[in-house]
Formats: sequence, structure tokens, C-alpha cells
Amino acid sequence: MCNRLPIWCYLPKVTYGGGKMATIKDVAKEAGLSVASVSRYINNKGYVGEDAKLRIEAAIQKLNYRPNEIARSLFQKKTNMIGLIIPDISNPFFPMLARGVEDYLAEHNYQMVLGNTANDIIRENQYYNSFQQHNFAGIITAVEPLHEEERTVPVIHIDRVSEGSQFYVRADHFLGGHLVAQAVIDSQPKKVLIMSGPKNIWNVSQKNQELVSQLQGQKVPYTELAVETFGLENIMTIVKEVFAKIPEHDTVVATNDIHAIYLIKEALSRGIKIPEELQVIGYDGIDFAELLVPTLTTVRQPVYEMGSLAAEMLINQIKGQGNDNKRVCLPVTISPGATMRKKD
Amino acid sequence: MCNRLPIWCYLPKVTYGGGKMATIKDVAKEAGLSVASVSRYINNKGYVGEDAKLRIEAAIQKLNYRPNEIARSLFQKKTNMIGLIIPDISNPFFPMLARGVEDYLAEHNYQMVLGNTANDIIRENQYYNSFQQHNFAGIITAVEPLHEEERTVPVIHIDRVSEGSQFYVRADHFLGGHLVAQAVIDSQPKKVLIMSGPKNIWNVSQKNQELVSQLQGQKVPYTELAVETFGLENIMTIVKEVFAKIPEHDTVVATNDIHAIYLIKEALSRGIKIPEELQVIGYDGIDFAELLVPTLTTVRQPVYEMGSLAAEMLINQIKGQGNDNKRVCLPVTISPGATMRKKD
Repeated sequence: MCNRLPIWCYLPKVTYGGGKMATIKDVAKEAGLSVASVSRYINNKGYVGEDAKLRIEAAIQKLNYRPNEIARSLFQKKTNMIGLIIPDISNPFFPMLARGVEDYLAEHNYQMVLGNTANDIIRENQYYNSFQQHNFAGIITAVEPLHEEERTVPVIHIDRVSEGSQFYVRADHFLGGHLVAQAVIDSQPKKVLIMSGPKNIWNVSQKNQELVSQLQGQKVPYTELAVETFGLENIMTIVKEVFAKIPEHDTVVATNDIHAIYLIKEALSRGIKIPEELQVIGYDGIDFAELLVPTLTTVRQPVYEMGSLAAEMLINQIKGQGNDNKRVCLPVTISPGATMRKKD
Repeated sequence: MCNRLPIWCYLPKVTYGGGKMATIKDVAKEAGLSVASVSRYINNKGYVGEDAKLRIEAAIQKLNYRPNEIARSLFQKKTNMIGLIIPDISNPFFPMLARGVEDYLAEHNYQMVLGNTANDIIRENQYYNSFQQHNFAGIITAVEPLHEEERTVPVIHIDRVSEGSQFYVRADHFLGGHLVAQAVIDSQPKKVLIMSGPKNIWNVSQKNQELVSQLQGQKVPYTELAVETFGLENIMTIVKEVFAKIPEHDTVVATNDIHAIYLIKEALSRGIKIPEELQVIGYDGIDFAELLVPTLTTVRQPVYEMGSLAAEMLINQIKGQGNDNKRVCLPVTISPGATMRKKD
């Protein structure tokens, strides 16, 4: 079902330090000095005046110059380190993704190191810079792609990809939206509350568009509630907003599993019966969803496999073996639990 | 209550690549060549014969030689990267620890990258080597310390420390054992099953020794069950072993919260009433323990604070400001839930 919807997702073009990598020539020009002077300074060989040092330092910082060639000639080759950038280590989805990546890499003598952006876009760029500066062999990123044009090492996108990403592994969220809609329609809801999720993420728009389209087709009444995060930063506010819409709504499509788990806890502590009085469906299929009592009904992504596949694609690229499948989209499945009513 | 118990914990001395860092001289000697030849090869300057190249490469690999001095003169200074080594990213305890570390570091313009050993001791050493070779500013490690003598950058131990660690942040597991014992004794158990946890970890021995001592003092009958992991690798086998001892035992002291959550799920699916027929107490205080229904009774470690404090200690060391508190031990608290009976 992948790639069926020609959804165009607005991705602002963000560039850092001028958009392309600075060279030693750029630094020399910016500092108003000769390349030889800059080289002497960078290599710590020969005399460089105090004033020149300051100007070079300023130019290096301004241009975000990374002495990559030098580092490369030093280490002779790329290291065996692979950087994985994730948006939220607190959501068990991403540690599971990381397990898939690192198990494959370890088998192939690569080493995964992980950078967590904590949903901070600045940190994402910092990790890219550091990983490239340290001659990592490649990068796998699960953060919304904003500026793919600047990469100097192979990059595979995973989970949060954009339509334009050249190499990616993702789950089929169109199918995800379809499966959620099916479970919701089968449960004969009174009125559905859809927690929307961050709007700028392609996954979210794919899932929600199909979900809404199905509900409309079946004339199931619903309301959308803007929830701009997958994280737990404002979970108490989010829970309050949701329960303000209950019991008018008797069915909640949660942003993801961790939000669903908080909603169920709150419902039970208020004495609201699940699923008789309130239904909740999650998304992701984290392990804890199965451990919950009642077991969470959710859509399971093949998260470990996604990690493993992305690692395989990256290693193939690094070894120059290319990838027949540049864009891989894996199916999701419904994981029936006890938080949605069954069909009569 | 810290440091009360003079427990001596056997830590095997493991050395890699000869025990101390190899120098360029060692490489030259091993290769049977002059230092000048090795230097030419490493710096990619001047002629080195094919045979010499092979011998140098072999010597570098055999001695695990890292051209640190050269890298240092190249980058002029240490990077702002800090490595955090954790044993198990799948246990939410460690992502929470990482959040504490990274929030402090980000505020102070350092960048955390994370290595997950997945309880594989080989990977721990690989991370140390990589982080040091890349001139990381420092390392924080939550993996059992095995070979502290080989470090070339500041290292802070966290959580799984040894008595001999020079700089550490840990929780008070003697107090933890005491609080578990108190909750167990108050619940008037029939017979207690203690899931032991990995024996070579100091935390575990501290906790269990105090727990057992208290139970013995109060003549509470108990059995110890050897459980050599905190992870989920063999969770189904572990669950089976535990339930083979029920109902003879009506109270289980779980290795940690994630094991406790699996036990509760199994009990409920068998129709065993909690806490009337079976009591379970966890350890750690992960967020999911509070979200469980029934809420898990557990001992809460100040895990985010531990991460934050370790990061602060490390930055102080890097800046040469020293640490008044070289060994920090933070108190734990009991988090009363609904999985243990209350005192009459």
C-alpha cells in the first residue's frame, strides 16, 4: 500500500553555515589570509601571529569549517562507527529501533553510537556535524529530515522519513490508518476523538488522512484534537484535554502507545470502564502495550526489523554494493487487545 | 547509610592489548622497523614499501595502537563529546539515566553520545576504545567496572559502580534492601521468594545482604532464586521458574521493575489475585511501574538526578575544578503501590 498517496508534506529548507561545507580556501578568504597560514595554524606547524589566530578561529566558527580531509588522511580510512540519531529515547519505540540497528551492525563489525535529540532540532544538526567530523562510516536518522543536501557520509532515513528521502526504511502508515479505522468502525463508536500528532511528520499525515477518509466514508462522527507531540513533556495537559471531551466521545485514537497508556491509567483511576464506557486504540506496538492490563489494542510496527534493515542498507552503501531497494516500506499489523469493543 | 557494609566484591582484572597503551615505539619494535618509517606511514608522508605497510598494519592491530597524540595535535583540543556507556537500552531505567546526563551536558555545551553494550562485555571495551580514540572529553559508564586502570580521559562511574571506583554516583542499595525488607515484613508474608539478580554487581550484593539480614532477624521464611540477569533475554524461562514456586511462596521480591511487570501480567492472566494471593515488589522506580494497574510497589532510585550529577562531576573534572564529592551516594525511597498488602 506504500506510496499510494501523493501527499506533499511541507518541509522547510534549513541550511546551516551557508548550505555547503566550507573548505580551507573559504576559511582563508574569510580570514583575509593565505591558505598556507591557515594550514600552518590548523596543523600547528610553524609561526602564526596572535591576530591571525583570532581571525582564523572566527572564520572557522563562522563557516562551521571541519578539517575533514586532514582527519581522513590521519586515520587513513573511515572509522567503523555508525551514528544513529533518534528524537526521543524515553519512548520505548526508539530503544527497540536501536536494538535492531545495533544487533545487525555488531554482527558486521560496526559499532553504533546513539544521539538523542530530545525533539530539539538544533541537537540533530549538532549530531550530524560531530558524526561527520569524526569520520563516522555512516548515519541512520529517525528524525524528520530537514536538510538532506549537506551530508558527506551515507545516510539512511528510518521511521520519520520524508517523501523526498533518497534512502529510507519506514512502516506503511497508510495501512496503519486503515487498520485503525477498521478497528474503530467495527467497535461501533458513539463519537471518535482523534489525537492528531505532530502535523509536520509525513507518517502522521499518511495515517490520519486514511483514517479520516474511512470514518467519513462510514459516516462515523469524529473530532480532531491537535496534539503536537509524541513525547511526555505535556502529558498531564494532554490527558486533561482528552478527558474534557469525554463522555461526549467514547473512543480515543491515541497519538501513540505511551499516550494511550496514560489515558487508560487515568480512565481506570476515574472508575471509567474500559472498553464499555471508553475505548482507546494506540499506535506503535511497544512491548509495554502487551503488558498492560487490559492489554492495549494497537497497531504494531515492525520496529526491530526496520532498524535491522536500515543497518543492512547502510552497510551495503558503505561497501559500495548499492541497494536495489532504495525505499523500503514494511507492513504494519493490528494487535488486538482489550481496550476496543469487538464486532458484534 | 552509604558505605556501611565493607563488602568486597570480586572484580577480575581484565587487560586488553597488553594492559597499557601502545606507543609509536612499540609499533615500530613489533614491526621490526624504524619509528620514522611508522611515522611516515601513519602521517601518510613519504615512501613506505608495501611489505612495511603490511607489517605496520599488523603491529597496529596487534597492539591496539591509537594515534592519540597526532589526533590531539590535529584537533588542537578535546572535542565536546561525552560518551555514555549503558548495559541495556531496553530497560527504561537507562534511557531515563541518559536523559539526566544529556540535559545537563546540553546546558553546558557538551554533547552526549550513547553506547549500548547489550550486556556484552566486549562491546564495553570497544566503546571505551572508540571514545578515547576520537578524543572524547570524557566518559560516563553504567557498566560494571572491570579495568579502570587503562583510561586516558576522565571517567565517572554511575549506577553499577564498584567499591574501588574513584569517581562515582550511585544509589544507596543498602537502604534499598532495607526498604524492601520493611515492606515485605509489614505485609506478613507466608514465604518470600527473592529473585537474586546478577551476583557480580555490587549494587545487588548490597541490596540482598541487607534484605536477607532483615528477614532472618524477623524469622521470615524465604528462598533465593538465582536470576543472573536484569534483562529480558530469558524472561519467559524466568517467569516459569518463579511460578513453579507459587503458591508455596506468596511474595516475590523481583530483580527489578521490568521483571516485576512480567510477573504481574502472568499472575493476572492465571487468575491469581494481587496482592491477596500473590504479592510482588519491584526495584528501580521506572515510569511504567506507576502506570501499571495495579500500581507496582517498588523502590525508586533518583535515576534522572544520578545522571545529572554524574554529568556535573565529569564537567568539573574536565575543567580541572576537581570534585569535593568524589563518591556520591543518593538515597532511594519506597514507592507504595497496590501489589503488596498493607500493614494491619
